[in-house]
Amino acid sequence: MKTGRLEAFSDGVLAIIITIMVLELKVPEEGTFEALKPLIPKIISYIISFMYVGIYWNNHHHLFQIIEKINGKVLWANLILLFFLSLLPFSTAWMGENHFAQNTIAVYGFNLLLCALAYSFVLNTALMLESKDSLLAKAFKNKTKGTISSILYLIGIILSFFYPKISLFLYFIVAMIWLIPDKRVEKNII
Amino acid sequence: MKTGRLEAFSDGVLAIIITIMVLELKVPEEGTFEALKPLIPKIISYIISFMYVGIYWNNHHHLFQIIEKINGKVLWANLILLFFLSLLPFSTAWMGENHFAQNTIAVYGFNLLLCALAYSFVLNTALMLESKDSLLAKAFKNKTKGTISSILYLIGIILSFFYPKISLFLYFIVAMIWLIPDKRVEKNII
Amino acid sequence: MKTGRLEAFSDGVLAIIITIMVLELKVPEEGTFEALKPLIPKIISYIISFMYVGIYWNNHHHLFQIIEKINGKVLWANLILLFFLSLLPFSTAWMGENHFAQNTIAVYGFNLLLCALAYSFVLNTALMLESKDSLLAKAFKNKTKGTISSILYLIGIILSFFYPKISLFLYFIVAMIWLIPDKRVEKNII
Amino acid sequence: MKTGRLEAFSDGVLAIIITIMVLELKVPEEGTFEALKPLIPKIISYIISFMYVGIYWNNHHHLFQIIEKINGKVLWANLILLFFLSLLPFSTAWMGENHFAQNTIAVYGFNLLLCALAYSFVLNTALMLESKDSLLAKAFKNKTKGTISSILYLIGIILSFFYPKISLFLYFIVAMIWLIPDKRVEKNII
Repeated sequence: MKTGRLEAFSDGVLAIIITIMVLELKVPEEGTFEALKPLIPKIISYIISFMYVGIYWNNHHHLFQIIEKINGKVLWANLILLFFLSLLPFSTAWMGENHFAQNTIAVYGFNLLLCALAYSFVLNTALMLESKDSLLAKAFKNKTKGTISSILYLIGIILSFFYPKISLFLYFIVAMIWLIPDKRVEKNII
Repeated sequence: MKTGRLEAFSDGVLAIIITIMVLELKVPEEGTFEALKPLIPKIISYIISFMYVGIYWNNHHHLFQIIEKINGKVLWANLILLFFLSLLPFSTAWMGENHFAQNTIAVYGFNLLLCALAYSFVLNTALMLESKDSLLAKAFKNKTKGTISSILYLIGIILSFFYPKISLFLYFIVAMIWLIPDKRVEKNII
Repeated sequence: MKTGRLEAFSDGVLAIIITIMVLELKVPEEGTFEALKPLIPKIISYIISFMYVGIYWNNHHHLFQIIEKINGKVLWANLILLFFLSLLPFSTAWMGENHFAQNTIAVYGFNLLLCALAYSFVLNTALMLESKDSLLAKAFKNKTKGTISSILYLIGIILSFFYPKISLFLYFIVAMIWLIPDKRVEKNII
Repeated sequence: MKTGRLEAFSDGVLAIIITIMVLELKVPEEGTFEALKPLIPKIISYIISFMYVGIYWNNHHHLFQIIEKINGKVLWANLILLFFLSLLPFSTAWMGENHFAQNTIAVYGFNLLLCALAYSFVLNTALMLESKDSLLAKAFKNKTKGTISSILYLIGIILSFFYPKISLFLYFIVAMIWLIPDKRVEKNII
């Protein structure tokens, strides 16, 4: 089974997820700068989630560039990933709407954690199809980044009830870990 | 006529259907866990429909991978399928909004039945273009799964007025029938 | 300039147009069949527009299958077509919301007329790039269907203020003209 | 890294941005022509933004047709461009909702300016990957249009507080600069 249509479908879903989040920025009825102020927390949470969906799209793109064959399991693992990503517009808007209240930060972190676990599930089902010497196996042998991310999410979820700002900072750190290009992987891919 | 653009268009529509369902999860105004509780039936119905749209995408993907030529009839049969699938966000949200009230479960089952009938219509119009010895004819000779699904939907619709929970369970069973990979079909395809 | 990305972009826009119309079917707060009744005019207008967008996608698909080269003018003519098609969800919902009131039927017909004119504009800009002996010129020499459609829309718009039901019937007739496959064109294409 | 999937993803996001703007045209509850009048400023702002997104899609299309290789930086520059473009439905609706109030015109111009800067960032990151003799370097050597646009946006933002109509006219002029095909570029591309 080729990966073409899976990529096209995932691109479609990711493009919609990243774009419909802007629909939660409800247009203020007044045309003053004052009226834009209550939108600031929403815009901040939109930026964070835009970055995250961008990171997932970017990694998904990289991953399926070196995957050669897939089976039904990879298709379903990918759908589970898309499901948890599709909840991001909700958890993002809830966090923005409630000015980063403690519970909303915990739920947002939990959503990010579920996405991360689903992503490694996609990776593992794909690895099971390839030999240990394959390009994929080599490129993704080192799972440190994934493990660190999950641990930081978990700490973030727990801390959200005590120091919500630190949680947000941790989520931001994880995004940065993924944003800064991973030389080792790039080398293996190209 | 090649299938490329039909697949791209269907992927687009399915990607939008599967994603806009999340827009029905209206963001609660309060940032408490309590405020999330009323969303539980909506999330459950979202999960069921996400699974169903995923199954349809998966099967559509498989089907058009072995279809070699299409004509105007297949195009229109496919549009009828997309129409009934496009009603799923509505029937899903109605069912979730009303906490799985009897009527809403009946309508949801009716929607699923219409999708199933439209899907076999697509399959039949495609089969009419191929010879009896074609890959397609062999792979989809056995229509037991389709027939069982339609019967279970019908029973589900009728039972919804008496035992709505059993109806939901039947819809879930049908999803499972399709989720568990069909070894026979996979063998014929590859 | 190749047509690949123009087709992909148009498919994306058409897929979204055809799907977001369902968002106008607001979910009733009650779970009774009674609560679904007010939605009937909306569903009827949704069906008509779904058919129309399907027809445009189908014809667009056919047209760009035989177009070999495009230029900036075709790109912009195509964007004008997409613009008028993007207004269909609005005029459809307005007509459904107001139970096919006279003015709404006139505006809906006007929208359909603008789409038809934009479509022939796309066709003409494409024809200007090809020789008179090209496949495209031969396949689309006969413009009777386009002319009849525009005349029927015009009559429909005028009649909407006196006999709105006849207008709706005329719009339906035009859809049928395009739904029934045009043997002559198909022959020229393949 | 090939550009195929970046183009597909960008097309998806641009298709959604251009289409969801129509969701801001809220359907009037009455079926009279009077009820359509308050929508006129919204439709005008929709037309301007539709033109702009069309221009960006068109230029994006041209740009990535001659780009041969990309890296992570181009991917992220492209995501930043998509982010600012994704804010257009918001600033467009705000401007239309408030009948082109001064502040809304300033914010709209600022959004356009950010899009223009992000676009030249994409262009520059792509240029850094190519040699000075490359097709890309030649085609985009002359940056006059980009510079003039940014200056006109800046003037527009400042003037919006004194002569808002002139600002709108300036934004319109910039759109026209880009709409009229750039012979020089076309020649270099083909």
